[in-house]
Amino acid sequence: MLLEDTICAISTAPGSGAIAVVRIAGPNAFETVEKIFHPAGKNKKLSSQPPHTAHFGTIHNGTKEIDEVVVTIFKGPRSFTGDDIAEISCHGAPIIQQEILHMLTDNGARLARPGEFTQRAFLNGKMDLSQAEAVADLIAARSESARRVALKQMKGGFSNELINLRSKLLEFTSLIELELDFSEEDVEFADRVQLVALVDEIDSVLSRLINSFSLGNAIKNGIPVAIVGHTNAGKSTLLNALLQEERAIVSDVHGTTRDVIEDVMNIEGITFRFIDTAGIRDTIDKVESMGIALTYSKIKQASIVILMMDARDEDEKIHQAVSDVKKHMETDDQQLIVVINKTDLVDPETTAKRFSEETFRELTGTDAIVPLSAKKHINLEALTSQLLKTVNLGALDHNEVVVTNARHYEALKNAREGIIRTRQGLETGLSGDFIAQDIREVLHYLGEITGQISTDEVLGNIFKNFCIGK
Amino acid sequence: MLLEDTICAISTAPGSGAIAVVRIAGPNAFETVEKIFHPAGKNKKLSSQPPHTAHFGTIHNGTKEIDEVVVTIFKGPRSFTGDDIAEISCHGAPIIQQEILHMLTDNGARLARPGEFTQRAFLNGKMDLSQAEAVADLIAARSESARRVALKQMKGGFSNELINLRSKLLEFTSLIELELDFSEEDVEFADRVQLVALVDEIDSVLSRLINSFSLGNAIKNGIPVAIVGHTNAGKSTLLNALLQEERAIVSDVHGTTRDVIEDVMNIEGITFRFIDTAGIRDTIDKVESMGIALTYSKIKQASIVILMMDARDEDEKIHQAVSDVKKHMETDDQQLIVVINKTDLVDPETTAKRFSEETFRELTGTDAIVPLSAKKHINLEALTSQLLKTVNLGALDHNEVVVTNARHYEALKNAREGIIRTRQGLETGLSGDFIAQDIREVLHYLGEITGQISTDEVLGNIFKNFCIGK
Repeated sequence: MLLEDTICAISTAPGSGAIAVVRIAGPNAFETVEKIFHPAGKNKKLSSQPPHTAHFGTIHNGTKEIDEVVVTIFKGPRSFTGDDIAEISCHGAPIIQQEILHMLTDNGARLARPGEFTQRAFLNGKMDLSQAEAVADLIAARSESARRVALKQMKGGFSNELINLRSKLLEFTSLIELELDFSEEDVEFADRVQLVALVDEIDSVLSRLINSFSLGNAIKNGIPVAIVGHTNAGKSTLLNALLQEERAIVSDVHGTTRDVIEDVMNIEGITFRFIDTAGIRDTIDKVESMGIALTYSKIKQASIVILMMDARDEDEKIHQAVSDVKKHMETDDQQLIVVINKTDLVDPETTAKRFSEETFRELTGTDAIVPLSAKKHINLEALTSQLLKTVNLGALDHNEVVVTNARHYEALKNAREGIIRTRQGLETGLSGDFIAQDIREVLHYLGEITGQISTDEVLGNIFKNFCIGK
Repeated sequence: MLLEDTICAISTAPGSGAIAVVRIAGPNAFETVEKIFHPAGKNKKLSSQPPHTAHFGTIHNGTKEIDEVVVTIFKGPRSFTGDDIAEISCHGAPIIQQEILHMLTDNGARLARPGEFTQRAFLNGKMDLSQAEAVADLIAARSESARRVALKQMKGGFSNELINLRSKLLEFTSLIELELDFSEEDVEFADRVQLVALVDEIDSVLSRLINSFSLGNAIKNGIPVAIVGHTNAGKSTLLNALLQEERAIVSDVHGTTRDVIEDVMNIEGITFRFIDTAGIRDTIDKVESMGIALTYSKIKQASIVILMMDARDEDEKIHQAVSDVKKHMETDDQQLIVVINKTDLVDPETTAKRFSEETFRELTGTDAIVPLSAKKHINLEALTSQLLKTVNLGALDHNEVVVTNARHYEALKNAREGIIRTRQGLETGLSGDFIAQDIREVLHYLGEITGQISTDEVLGNIFKNFCIGK
């Protein structure tokens, strides 16, 4: 796949910074840079310098000086891509970055495609496919948990688990296939009891991984939350109060300002997304004399539904609202949190008694209740901790592998189907060649995840979503 | 000025990129990074590694892994600031950049103020003040010429010229001041004829530098251009045609997209700004049955005025319009270019004859005339080359120092006043102590430019406009 090309790209964020880094990788990386870079001081050749060294000097376009830069060289195979790599750290004016990039392409390099550096790392055997995918996830991580899961995957946490399963399975398949060669002698090299145990073990690992995807997906894409309730229940006040607290936290996060324009909130590293909040705000303004101002489709999209009531509402009204909302919650995975707002307007002691979890469970059959005042910012932290509780962080807390990638999820489900067939085959005493075929299929799907089995089309789809320069 | 602090900042452009660089400088730079960075492989200490080397490893916050990074170390005084510097090249997610920055500050570094790295380079004697200012200009450069002038200044082109003048002057002052010690003996150590020659030489250099500021200012801030003309002369078509050509050129300039939303055009490295083009477009839509649709105040702001006429206009009308516009052009520095548009609608031969420079000069006393068709994109390049001609690029072409900084311009003008007084003193046979005083004043102003003489206030004003991380 054109590994003989030398590729280049701007690897730092677009726009103007103090410095920017232009990266070049490939067999002619050093030779290309030497054509435009004059090291300061003695006349030294980049390619003869020790690896992992930085060199100050000037970029020249013919007689024209372009910039003073530092060039750091990494020699293959001890580099990110496995190729020779040079990183040119220049002043961050976009025209300087562009000029250097143009000069590199004028001197034989070509512009890298999105993710092409990482693709090379994969093709050169520096990482497997799931690790390569984790590089993109790491760069795109917007929450602490997303960063953590991506880093673990990039460092091979997921791959190791799969490689382990795969090698055990491979061993068994070889034994079964050996039996086939001696089929007339009716021998069993592969111990069926051990194989059943292995299949069970693999089944349990695959199930755990498959189940982790709902958490993984929540971590990667954020957890969709819908806020519903009667007009004037204070939905927009609550949203603003939550986001305001959040904004205060992220206000010093240089560079992320553009990201928080959405109604997105990070709580202890988990991202919560308020789905179509424009819509939610709309419903707030809509005057509906009776009934709940909500769009039922919003409830369907949400993993968490926050129903807002007024602390002055009668029990009957609250009961009715809870049961209305529950009717529209379709899956068991959806969680309901009932928020009783405006507690500042009622007597605290009565409130505490009336809206205790016990009383409330009796009234509505629902546990999660949070009395608060959105306006006065009272008890907001009870809501955020309730939001967190709805996410089963078990896998994260136990430092287990969490699947975040839909492609992996599909492959794992397919692999598990193969495992179930294998088990059934073993139970029904199916002949070795059929069992071997089922196991081969499992191996195939596990191999797809790590990229031992891949097509150009699959690779193309994976890397096209990377950013340029990585 | 707190040179004992260790400072840190994100040095690459804000937002998400493939990689980002966090920079830390100061006496404890290595010690601070060692607290959060575990090099891969053997347990090596950063501070014991050779300078200018890059080290792969992991950033740890306690037991929590944050990212895989490369740390490059530069040891003072052989570094940008003159301090020990470590550059952490991490994955470009904003949350990773932030986390690393927070960990550095938790471990004793403090956030750098804008320009503080460069300020240290100045305070540590790695560069003088005009070179430090050029670092900011280089990063902010939006055109080839701005980049070129800033780089020359950063590399000491301007400083060398001043240091040379200054040292010659210093020598003379010492001699004159020596005379004062022997005043009773009426000796002249300083040869007055030589001094006059030196003063003349300095005057000529200062005058050249002062004069270069109009070019320097144009290079740095762009040349303001106003397009005026009758309704329907095709002003907006021309602007779009010019910008479209330009946009085509810059369309592949990754990262500058936001910058070209303004009506700004780079021609051969010089920036032309169409002043308040919203206003210009407004005037186009305004229906004025007769007369020229222009705002006179726009003419005042412009260095170049483009008057657009229609190739089908009568000589009399053109003559009248040129003289109207000229009436409102107040300074000799302003240049008029008359564009005769819609040449596609008239006979080419007649046009060529009618709008030749000779005929036109006779008609209006103005040289710069460009017949073209904005709509059909005919002869647009004649206009762009005419725009370039109005800029006196002499100094640039001769690779001379160009003053771009208003602070330097002021200091140069003050220095020159001192030189003129010195010369007058010499002519009128003023006594040594008065002459010495005038020369001291010249030395003072020259020293202000290079920063040999500076106050905290001056430094504060200069560096507060830098970006963070440089």
